[in-house]
Amino acid sequence: MPDMDFYKTLKRKADTKMLLLVADGLGGLARKPGGLTELETAKKPNLDKLAAEGTCGLLDPISPGITPGSGPSHLALFGYDPIKCNVGRGLLSALGVAFPLEHGDVAARINFCTIDKQGRVTDRRAGRIATEVNSRLIEKLRKNLKVDGAQIFLEPEKEHRAVVVFRGKDLYDNLNDTDPQATGVKPHDVQAADPKSEKAAKVVREFLKQVQTILADDHPANMMLLRGFARHERFVTMEEVFGIKCAAIATYPMYKGVAKLVGMDVLDCGPEPEDEVEALKKNYDKYDYFYLHYKKTDSRGEDGDFDAKVKEVEHFDSLVAPIRTLKFDVIAVTGDHSTPSLLKAHSWHPCPLILWSPYERRDTCERFGETECAARGGLGRMPSMHLMPIMLACAQRLEKFGA
Amino acid sequence: MPDMDFYKTLKRKADTKMLLLVADGLGGLARKPGGLTELETAKKPNLDKLAAEGTCGLLDPISPGITPGSGPSHLALFGYDPIKCNVGRGLLSALGVAFPLEHGDVAARINFCTIDKQGRVTDRRAGRIATEVNSRLIEKLRKNLKVDGAQIFLEPEKEHRAVVVFRGKDLYDNLNDTDPQATGVKPHDVQAADPKSEKAAKVVREFLKQVQTILADDHPANMMLLRGFARHERFVTMEEVFGIKCAAIATYPMYKGVAKLVGMDVLDCGPEPEDEVEALKKNYDKYDYFYLHYKKTDSRGEDGDFDAKVKEVEHFDSLVAPIRTLKFDVIAVTGDHSTPSLLKAHSWHPCPLILWSPYERRDTCERFGETECAARGGLGRMPSMHLMPIMLACAQRLEKFGA
Repeated sequence: MPDMDFYKTLKRKADTKMLLLVADGLGGLARKPGGLTELETAKKPNLDKLAAEGTCGLLDPISPGITPGSGPSHLALFGYDPIKCNVGRGLLSALGVAFPLEHGDVAARINFCTIDKQGRVTDRRAGRIATEVNSRLIEKLRKNLKVDGAQIFLEPEKEHRAVVVFRGKDLYDNLNDTDPQATGVKPHDVQAADPKSEKAAKVVREFLKQVQTILADDHPANMMLLRGFARHERFVTMEEVFGIKCAAIATYPMYKGVAKLVGMDVLDCGPEPEDEVEALKKNYDKYDYFYLHYKKTDSRGEDGDFDAKVKEVEHFDSLVAPIRTLKFDVIAVTGDHSTPSLLKAHSWHPCPLILWSPYERRDTCERFGETECAARGGLGRMPSMHLMPIMLACAQRLEKFGA
Repeated sequence: MPDMDFYKTLKRKADTKMLLLVADGLGGLARKPGGLTELETAKKPNLDKLAAEGTCGLLDPISPGITPGSGPSHLALFGYDPIKCNVGRGLLSALGVAFPLEHGDVAARINFCTIDKQGRVTDRRAGRIATEVNSRLIEKLRKNLKVDGAQIFLEPEKEHRAVVVFRGKDLYDNLNDTDPQATGVKPHDVQAADPKSEKAAKVVREFLKQVQTILADDHPANMMLLRGFARHERFVTMEEVFGIKCAAIATYPMYKGVAKLVGMDVLDCGPEPEDEVEALKKNYDKYDYFYLHYKKTDSRGEDGDFDAKVKEVEHFDSLVAPIRTLKFDVIAVTGDHSTPSLLKAHSWHPCPLILWSPYERRDTCERFGETECAARGGLGRMPSMHLMPIMLACAQRLEKFGA
């Protein structure tokens, strides 16, 4: 299997432009065995035309059977090995609130919780406090915390969830969760599982001691649990590996965050999908590679709302016509993973793919759909991480390997 | 590529049941180009129904072009990397005679042979002595051998073949075969290829010296050749990796042995396929995962008897209806490898697969057959080792990877 160092040796300059269109959670399942999926049900003339002109296939985000989170599934689409480049949960939370991570930061997820007088957890989610309460508590903590050995950054998320980032010299992340995953017991102490994480363990223990004091009177959110400690190591960028200038267009912080991890410029744009297309048009001349993210196919899948997901596919389809006026050399359309409304969750099923390029072979697919991609897709089934080199090849941006 | 440590982190509890039905050597070839294979020729209404309801595909036991033995091809179906987890030939022989291997045992294959007065091999198979002669010689050796540094276990196989297991402290297997693969020359001396195998080399040399003395008057089988030294290292079990209780139902020692290697309980059952189905019914409540092995599709393929293999496929098919009354959540039907009667041997061809689960996508396959699986199989073609994670995913027994 090629790695980043391999691709680095094959960089080649060309005056070509690539577009990766990601409809989040695009792949689906039929409501009943033998029926049509959300994608197959949708009226989507533009995507069908692109599929008929291009070549189809199926992408396994990680490996057959593995259900991915959005972090690893996007890294794979960007050409990174998603198992080797696994991003810890704490970091994903930090990316999700658009926190500007620096090399060496250690991040963790926070759950505000309720403890009794003996320090035992009575509610691991503090009654799912309102997001405004969460923000007020974070503000209070920011004002009152003073921990030696690290700067501490706190950011609220929704309800009882927040994120903490520890920044300091020699902080490492081999630390256990404090969440006991049960009520009636005290939170776990933080312990370092290796010597180099001892310093961070000390910092986190002092942090939690102060948190308990500061929040003592803030029932029900009078304590917090920490999970998913993860250290931010700088990624090799897409520009370094593939020699291309890359831009990301997304409306949710999480996806902007992952794009930043691999060195993409995140473009300003409004909140609607049409705003994303505008941003693409406006910046078309400035980059070699664009990643454009469409969120709500996933959201409606997670809701379990088949019809609403169909509608989102149709909305997504409506963006394709204006995008095609831009004359990209290579267009790939896929999802980061499947989110069947039947399962109301991400799933392990491979994701349908269209690859459009004058330099790809055609197949007999006439429409864009899971069954069609499986049965007649000219690209077959492969790991998502192989898409990027194929796009680069079609863009004439990879040298021959060997002579 | 995910490894066992990766899957371990994704274990998830669920109240679901999985069944892997293996028809040994299931894949085949047509008698003439353009004709039907054994599987395609057979009348098999139950398998065809399962294929129509489920999703089909092709499995490469090891990797395209590689013809596997039964050991690695089964390990792959159980989710193990068959190249990394290669089981040495000596161990496979020991498993084949149902020898209860312990961690650290070193096993080797025995060929009884004929040597002349100068010690040169004149017949590498001792005229293919009768199995009864073999058993008598093994008995004689058991009574007379006394080797320091190891316990020695001997088991006859068929004709001139037998197996030896050396059990002792610090025995390693980096030893050359003694079989010179030619007549007119002496057997090779045993040499250790690394320092830690020196002790085993000494034990084996002493063993062979005594064998030559004990068998001196037993012409034609007056000596033995040893091949395939292999040390038994404990495997991580399927329960440890996947968190499931596993049972094996098989009638031949080899398959029971491989199942034991990965920690399955081997269930008692009678000699007929119908007895295997009975064992499945009787133990249905006790396990999460069952492996049921049907042997004779392979045997008739090895015989080169196309029609007899067709009949075995039909017999196998008749088991499917009673099995389906058991309401498994996930059923996979495949072979461990192909055994085309045209070749009278295992082959490299990928094996047809049916995966049945309410959470898999459908495809347009209406029958179970090699051509149909290749042309219309919704799962495409993949290594056998990916089947296990897909079965676990369909059984809702894998957590999401990343967030």
